[in-house]
Amino acid sequence: MTVDGAMTDPKGDRGLPPGKQADPDLYTHVVEKRKDGIIVRGAKAHQTGAINSHWILVMPTIAMTKEDADYALSFVAPADAEGISYIYGRQSCDTRKLEGGNIDVGNSQFGGHEALMVFDDLFVPWENVLMCGEYEFSGALVERFAGYHRQSYGGCKVGVGDVLIGAAALAADYNGASKASHVKDKLIEMTHLNETLYSCGIACSSQGHKTASGTYLIDLLLANVCKQNVTRFPYEIARLAEDIAGGLMVTMASEKDLRHPEIGKIIEKYFKGIASVPTENRCRILRLVENITLGTAAVGYRTESMHGAGSPQAQRIMISRQSNLEQKKKLAKAIAGIKE
Amino acid sequence: MTVDGAMTDPKGDRGLPPGKQADPDLYTHVVEKRKDGIIVRGAKAHQTGAINSHWILVMPTIAMTKEDADYALSFVAPADAEGISYIYGRQSCDTRKLEGGNIDVGNSQFGGHEALMVFDDLFVPWENVLMCGEYEFSGALVERFAGYHRQSYGGCKVGVGDVLIGAAALAADYNGASKASHVKDKLIEMTHLNETLYSCGIACSSQGHKTASGTYLIDLLLANVCKQNVTRFPYEIARLAEDIAGGLMVTMASEKDLRHPEIGKIIEKYFKGIASVPTENRCRILRLVENITLGTAAVGYRTESMHGAGSPQAQRIMISRQSNLEQKKKLAKAIAGIKE
Amino acid sequence: MTVDGAMTDPKGDRGLPPGKQADPDLYTHVVEKRKDGIIVRGAKAHQTGAINSHWILVMPTIAMTKEDADYALSFVAPADAEGISYIYGRQSCDTRKLEGGNIDVGNSQFGGHEALMVFDDLFVPWENVLMCGEYEFSGALVERFAGYHRQSYGGCKVGVGDVLIGAAALAADYNGASKASHVKDKLIEMTHLNETLYSCGIACSSQGHKTASGTYLIDLLLANVCKQNVTRFPYEIARLAEDIAGGLMVTMASEKDLRHPEIGKIIEKYFKGIASVPTENRCRILRLVENITLGTAAVGYRTESMHGAGSPQAQRIMISRQSNLEQKKKLAKAIAGIKE
Amino acid sequence: MTVDGAMTDPKGDRGLPPGKQADPDLYTHVVEKRKDGIIVRGAKAHQTGAINSHWILVMPTIAMTKEDADYALSFVAPADAEGISYIYGRQSCDTRKLEGGNIDVGNSQFGGHEALMVFDDLFVPWENVLMCGEYEFSGALVERFAGYHRQSYGGCKVGVGDVLIGAAALAADYNGASKASHVKDKLIEMTHLNETLYSCGIACSSQGHKTASGTYLIDLLLANVCKQNVTRFPYEIARLAEDIAGGLMVTMASEKDLRHPEIGKIIEKYFKGIASVPTENRCRILRLVENITLGTAAVGYRTESMHGAGSPQAQRIMISRQSNLEQKKKLAKAIAGIKE
Repeated sequence: MTVDGAMTDPKGDRGLPPGKQADPDLYTHVVEKRKDGIIVRGAKAHQTGAINSHWILVMPTIAMTKEDADYALSFVAPADAEGISYIYGRQSCDTRKLEGGNIDVGNSQFGGHEALMVFDDLFVPWENVLMCGEYEFSGALVERFAGYHRQSYGGCKVGVGDVLIGAAALAADYNGASKASHVKDKLIEMTHLNETLYSCGIACSSQGHKTASGTYLIDLLLANVCKQNVTRFPYEIARLAEDIAGGLMVTMASEKDLRHPEIGKIIEKYFKGIASVPTENRCRILRLVENITLGTAAVGYRTESMHGAGSPQAQRIMISRQSNLEQKKKLAKAIAGIKE
Repeated sequence: MTVDGAMTDPKGDRGLPPGKQADPDLYTHVVEKRKDGIIVRGAKAHQTGAINSHWILVMPTIAMTKEDADYALSFVAPADAEGISYIYGRQSCDTRKLEGGNIDVGNSQFGGHEALMVFDDLFVPWENVLMCGEYEFSGALVERFAGYHRQSYGGCKVGVGDVLIGAAALAADYNGASKASHVKDKLIEMTHLNETLYSCGIACSSQGHKTASGTYLIDLLLANVCKQNVTRFPYEIARLAEDIAGGLMVTMASEKDLRHPEIGKIIEKYFKGIASVPTENRCRILRLVENITLGTAAVGYRTESMHGAGSPQAQRIMISRQSNLEQKKKLAKAIAGIKE
Repeated sequence: MTVDGAMTDPKGDRGLPPGKQADPDLYTHVVEKRKDGIIVRGAKAHQTGAINSHWILVMPTIAMTKEDADYALSFVAPADAEGISYIYGRQSCDTRKLEGGNIDVGNSQFGGHEALMVFDDLFVPWENVLMCGEYEFSGALVERFAGYHRQSYGGCKVGVGDVLIGAAALAADYNGASKASHVKDKLIEMTHLNETLYSCGIACSSQGHKTASGTYLIDLLLANVCKQNVTRFPYEIARLAEDIAGGLMVTMASEKDLRHPEIGKIIEKYFKGIASVPTENRCRILRLVENITLGTAAVGYRTESMHGAGSPQAQRIMISRQSNLEQKKKLAKAIAGIKE
Repeated sequence: MTVDGAMTDPKGDRGLPPGKQADPDLYTHVVEKRKDGIIVRGAKAHQTGAINSHWILVMPTIAMTKEDADYALSFVAPADAEGISYIYGRQSCDTRKLEGGNIDVGNSQFGGHEALMVFDDLFVPWENVLMCGEYEFSGALVERFAGYHRQSYGGCKVGVGDVLIGAAALAADYNGASKASHVKDKLIEMTHLNETLYSCGIACSSQGHKTASGTYLIDLLLANVCKQNVTRFPYEIARLAEDIAGGLMVTMASEKDLRHPEIGKIIEKYFKGIASVPTENRCRILRLVENITLGTAAVGYRTESMHGAGSPQAQRIMISRQSNLEQKKKLAKAIAGIKE
């Protein structure tokens, strides 16, 4: 069973709280409480994998005040419940999937999607309601869900990074450039950055602790540090991959041309790298690099690394809150010989 | 009259010189010298704007040795001469141009293309031949053409950067986030990086000198320094733009859905930013940011910034050659009081 | 004749304007206006070269309001005028200059100093008073003086950088490591960063313009961009120099030990690099790197690069003011097809 | 009991192996094997804490070949054994410890030292010899010792970082600047970088495994990744600390002047920050920042972060060896649909 954890509201004007928006539905809220359940209106944006999920788990998107109690809302519902609709988001290069063939898509086996999840007077029976008005717990819920999500990127994005590093290394092999010291050094840098992200993911798990409920909570400071690095390093890893791949990645002819009886021969001849590797394989690996750095997978590797589980500034606020600066000042005073 | 300066050969195995390639045509070369002209075979890759040029100016791609004299070749030809064919390269999101509408393309007014330019026994009359066998001048020609090209990016990429900075600032306005100090600071950083590139472009022009021929040559060291920065800063400017734009840039519904009588209303409602700005305008600016960071324009702003006018390592070699390290050592010895 | 341009006031509590400080003298001000001149009280901090100057030129440190008119003060005075005293600032490793010998100081020929310049009821005749109460011009004066100062670092710090690059290259030669590709690459990076600073300096001069007065004013945006890079790149150049130099730079025995009849022999033997270079020369070059990265010269190459001519945030405010963001938004709107 | 693990040999010409050096003693080696023990000649450089150790544990400095079997040497000896002498290394600002007073030293309570450890025909009885000629195990020994050492910096340098972050935060408080958003953001960045180092340290421990001997071995790839970050982030943390501290850190008058009956009053008056904090405390915290970024502690926080436990390139070689690039290529081929 796949459950979509749905947190991010459309938010409208970022300068205004839920209740002050021109349109009250820009944050998901309860519009009616009945004996048997509640009526919900609003939406959740950027829902990765929503359409292939069985259930959805809706949570509030920020800490709420008493005034916004109607927005302190959490519930579960079947993904196909009446009153829920989805608007599919488009990704860079998405229509290549409709062209037929399996080279230009870069990755013909795996992919993902995002959708806008809309609640049009959705009815949720009380047994499926997890939070309805308990605004004082909204902040803690967001903080913890985001914490787990931020930690998880220390694994998820690192796996994509492994594939990109491998693809760049293959591109260098196919170019006959893998012995160049600057190419080797760039692959080392990509690996170094990727393993640093992995270290951050491991650290916030290994420093987790058991909560009163018996479940384990990751280290929230390190989870935010992990995600903050995820908003930076994949971009540099991608930049280095583009450096190693070479310009052909974005000037290469289409798969249809490669398959063309006449044009195909010319492409075969002139896009050839080292003699021992078929031109098609070189095209395939460059299209994979393109897919992760510019194409459909770039949505997950770049933009989601930036904004998924909260935008960079959200982590900086959490790092600030949890950095225990006063204790660090005490250490400095003791060593500097400052008495007060 | 537009002239395409065509320099980059396919190059095949980067570990081998022109004459040692499995296929001798992987570098453009003269295959026959007649009384009236020469016969040329080979190709030029990654030719930006080739198909909208009137003439092509072919130049060798690297310094040549005596053994590779047949590859020391430069000539002009009409772009539509018999014996020249073009294979159009595909760009990220290219087929959006075929969808109709003008939002999802991001930039419906301007664009570019790259093509593979193929010479299939092209005849070039002697009056159009500029170099044919003078291998000893091949290196200097490449170095100078590349120098001008590298300098030019201090203007060209900076103009795109101005648009991207403006688009990111608008996205922040439309999100109601433009007063956040971290947003202001990111716009300052984008401007700072962009103006640094501009400074490098200005510097290598202002430090240029008149050559014996009467033409002016830009400062070659600073031209390579300029391009080296161009392989870095646009990537960081793009990263910051993606940070400010927000995730909607890659999860937004299609223009067709926005125009749909039913779905359009939902999108209008939930993709709304600040109340005073139509949802469509918000979509338009986010699609422009997508266009420059992931779409068709990313080919020019990212990959061409990396590989156009030579890949990063090419500039590092030139910087090393022209850094006059021995003079710097002399200065250090004098100050350190080292006598030899 | 050397004139010290004295701008920076002690400033006390950065959260308060001049007139609101607990001590009114924390910003330099006029305390009495006489028929023949004015009486000045206050101080100027961080005055590089003050003590070897013939005259001082005092200027206000920030834009002033009507309330702070007494602090809108500019005048010239002989550096040794009665009523001016100097308190010498200490630098890292300063007392090595008192030890005798010329190795451990790193640079035995050149150096500098900073001093606190104190005005204890200094009398300044009216003919030497340049500004006294014209608060509305105070901001422009600061902005212009700082502009020239920020531009100048594109030359001054680059010269120090040349010496440091040369010293690092020599250290690599003496270690027998100069052929290692990573060492070559680090020297290229140091040169690249240093020449980028130089480009910024050149650019803001070449983009300068003639003012109504007939004098020339550098480009203020680019001058601030130049200085902002100066707050970053010298630190990275220094880091790379420390990388190439090796740990001996901070674990080396003293010059006195090197000169010791017994201990000297052991040092000669074990601190030897390549056979052809005397151990003393290796020590000399490492002490020069230490001098610029940690010692007396680090005050000028690091901290002054950071805070001289204004701290990093001061440049960011200026970049923001002069970035013409509205024009960039117009460009983005035009390309995105946004009509209002 | 403190044991100094002594690994780093002087190394002479880095381009030559131990046996090819002009002086055979530039790498520590056995010069005679007796019935009761061995005679050792050579030295170990950069030995932190050597002089306050009870025992020394000598290990080879690199992987050895059969030719260099005499250099494959490991033993223990009392730190004060006959035949061992120490030459004390000097640190930036070391002589401030001899001036009396406790402000200018920055840290009057703690400190360290490095020394050159010289073996002048040291006799080591066989029971204290751990390796003597087993060159085939030399590489593994170096790799493992370095691995633990590189991992340990994820704790050691982070502790210093905590103090520096606290000192910078106090300096901002004393300047009345702690509410400025750019100051807050810089403290967040310092914390983020420091906690990233901590995460790397934690990760390579938590991913360690039990060896056949029963001892635990840290993850060698992550240990090298940890150290590689340590060669970068402390430099950026230091740069940000210098930014926040302000220029007074390097232009401040001496402690002696502060204690002077007359000069002291002027310093008290003009170096005052916020009214509620004594000038002396402000001086103390700035001297602590100076101590860690430029002074005696900079040796440990900067240069030792760079070169301790092996220089940056040593880690890059290890990262390359352990990155399992072939497996990453397999992943990329599978996803790109490349069959061979």
